[in-house]
Amino acid sequence: MPVNPRAAHLALALRCVAEQSGAISRAGISAATGLNRSTACSLIEELMAGGLVKEVGSRRESSRAGRPGTALGLRNDGPAGLGIDVNVDYTAVCVVDLTGAVRYKHVVSEDQRGQDTHEVLDRIARLARGAQNAAEADGLALCGSAVAVPGIVDRRGATVTLAPNLGWRDLDVTEVLPADVHGERAALDNEANFAALSEQELIRSGASYLYVSGQIGVGAGIVLDGTLYRGSHGWSGEIGHLTIDRDGPECPCGRRGCLERYAGHEAILRATSISSGVGTTLGVRPTVDLIAARARAGDAQTLEALATAGRTLGFALAGCLNLLDVGTIVLGGIYRDLAPWIGPEVEREVRAQFVGARWADPEVRAAAYGAEAPALGAARSVVRDVINDPIRWLAR
Amino acid sequence: MPVNPRAAHLALALRCVAEQSGAISRAGISAATGLNRSTACSLIEELMAGGLVKEVGSRRESSRAGRPGTALGLRNDGPAGLGIDVNVDYTAVCVVDLTGAVRYKHVVSEDQRGQDTHEVLDRIARLARGAQNAAEADGLALCGSAVAVPGIVDRRGATVTLAPNLGWRDLDVTEVLPADVHGERAALDNEANFAALSEQELIRSGASYLYVSGQIGVGAGIVLDGTLYRGSHGWSGEIGHLTIDRDGPECPCGRRGCLERYAGHEAILRATSISSGVGTTLGVRPTVDLIAARARAGDAQTLEALATAGRTLGFALAGCLNLLDVGTIVLGGIYRDLAPWIGPEVEREVRAQFVGARWADPEVRAAAYGAEAPALGAARSVVRDVINDPIRWLAR
Repeated sequence: MPVNPRAAHLALALRCVAEQSGAISRAGISAATGLNRSTACSLIEELMAGGLVKEVGSRRESSRAGRPGTALGLRNDGPAGLGIDVNVDYTAVCVVDLTGAVRYKHVVSEDQRGQDTHEVLDRIARLARGAQNAAEADGLALCGSAVAVPGIVDRRGATVTLAPNLGWRDLDVTEVLPADVHGERAALDNEANFAALSEQELIRSGASYLYVSGQIGVGAGIVLDGTLYRGSHGWSGEIGHLTIDRDGPECPCGRRGCLERYAGHEAILRATSISSGVGTTLGVRPTVDLIAARARAGDAQTLEALATAGRTLGFALAGCLNLLDVGTIVLGGIYRDLAPWIGPEVEREVRAQFVGARWADPEVRAAAYGAEAPALGAARSVVRDVINDPIRWLAR
Repeated sequence: MPVNPRAAHLALALRCVAEQSGAISRAGISAATGLNRSTACSLIEELMAGGLVKEVGSRRESSRAGRPGTALGLRNDGPAGLGIDVNVDYTAVCVVDLTGAVRYKHVVSEDQRGQDTHEVLDRIARLARGAQNAAEADGLALCGSAVAVPGIVDRRGATVTLAPNLGWRDLDVTEVLPADVHGERAALDNEANFAALSEQELIRSGASYLYVSGQIGVGAGIVLDGTLYRGSHGWSGEIGHLTIDRDGPECPCGRRGCLERYAGHEAILRATSISSGVGTTLGVRPTVDLIAARARAGDAQTLEALATAGRTLGFALAGCLNLLDVGTIVLGGIYRDLAPWIGPEVEREVRAQFVGARWADPEVRAAAYGAEAPALGAARSVVRDVINDPIRWLAR
């Protein structure tokens, strides 16, 4: 929360509107925040003048004094956030309005491995421009952008430190993206972190959860009490390199027996005898569709491969639960598509290995969104920043 | 932060005083918080009238207007927190004042295993009364108490769900302790969580760290950005049951190959050929002193046992770092005493297994306090609650 009192009060009032959009009046905000009625009214005037809040009709609640109990809601024609996900075999872009609703999306399938980084950056810039134009044509005003990458990022320097599957090292990707209204560059984060932020309902309820993103690599976004926990350097959630077996197979990271070698996309392809060469040609999504189709058809080798991957993933996640005690595990990325087969194995391992399991079963659920999750979460993180600190937007 | 604006401002002002006790004036508080000078002055008056803040002399800084730049500090003759640590072979009690300084402490060594719980509870009540009397004789006013136990607690129900080494199950320990000024019962938490809160300097700096507490069991307290993270049920930090080897030795928890079986007190005793029977007779502390003495004398078997325990502990902690990316690991409990031998092994494993290690080495350090850490952290958590929300104390 901002320290400046006016800024803090604006944030407090806007958060109340966001949490009960369409169902809260000025009197309700006064009651919920402890701010007196005239302060609440003046804050709402400022938020309305700034294009963040609007009146959405009258409420039936009786109002003892002052303005009638008109319901307030977030504007869906004000600021909008742009999110981009640069993945190994596709680039996705999306725009959300202040309510978090998707107003534009576009996905380009193209294998980025081995491509010239200038070409990749050009494509990102082009996609971002297209999204920005579409948003503006829709009456929205871009308030910032955020980009998700499969790798380790330096958020302070806004560079991708290492994205092994893209072949990127110390690359500045944000310079080609639209700056925000104050000229600040796009935000940058790991795809699992942004994917975790796509789970808007869990965030709104203040839940603590671990969002596991199965891609070519395996990562996790940690959300504690509704807030993404990024770690001291922004490197939290590197569960793909949790060691399952110190004598296990070599990992490209230089260690042995990492979770990715058992439960990552390539490992599942290998175990299902869909050669990883096909994975390279087809891209991740079609191979996952193929695996799911075989599993649905009852193919024994596929079912066994998914059970093994699920058990290993569940074993690692049970360890995470012993450390973090979050209430929910969200299966995202390829694990979302494979959740009917992987989910039960994860649940079984969690019940067996989580110390608290005899008193409370953590929920294991499939993610709300599939491949669009990182771009959507990135875009939502942009508008969430406006809701958490509206004075920056108001002072534009 | 409290939602009521006055309460939030009081908390903000008091936090400023706490962070720069003895070195901040009213003008400094106004500058740091963005509150105007007269508001800052009136908040300070209220905090002074409530016995939380005092003037501690004048500062040399020039003050353009209003009151002279008198330095403000926390009172050390106001509210005090009582902390109790019920451990397997001792009970410790301590009282701290608002600055976190220890004003009273007392430790009773007695093996609690197999004892009648009424007797144990009577002893706790007696120790607490003695501490309260001593605090009051010292001019302090108890503002609450907190109790640390080696086990899984139900913080909502204020009962110890399971403390296997004490033989406790669903036991209410807080009923025998002094209530706070509003009649609220003592706080209850796992000993590792409270021990983590004894690291006052790390907390003040807003650091993120993992505090590993080696006792008969092994637990951890997770502090993120200066705040203890307890988990959805209060069960975070159960690292003693992270699985090192699924085919490893049986653990009393019913699983196999848990960290405690390799790096816990009993495991180290066994590997050093100090029989665990001696551990039961002598208590934990003397056996640890014996191990440290042998290690200092260069005993090969002891050095090898400590290196093995340190490697296994470091392996588990590197996994925790991959998940949490905290900047510091604090070695507490028996690991503090054994840090000269265990610490380097932990550092080596972290460098080998932590994904971020090539860009940033997490710090591995010995805890600031030994056996007194849980009681001290419990007591400090009580006064910290007053600093974080002073209006509850002021409204007493």
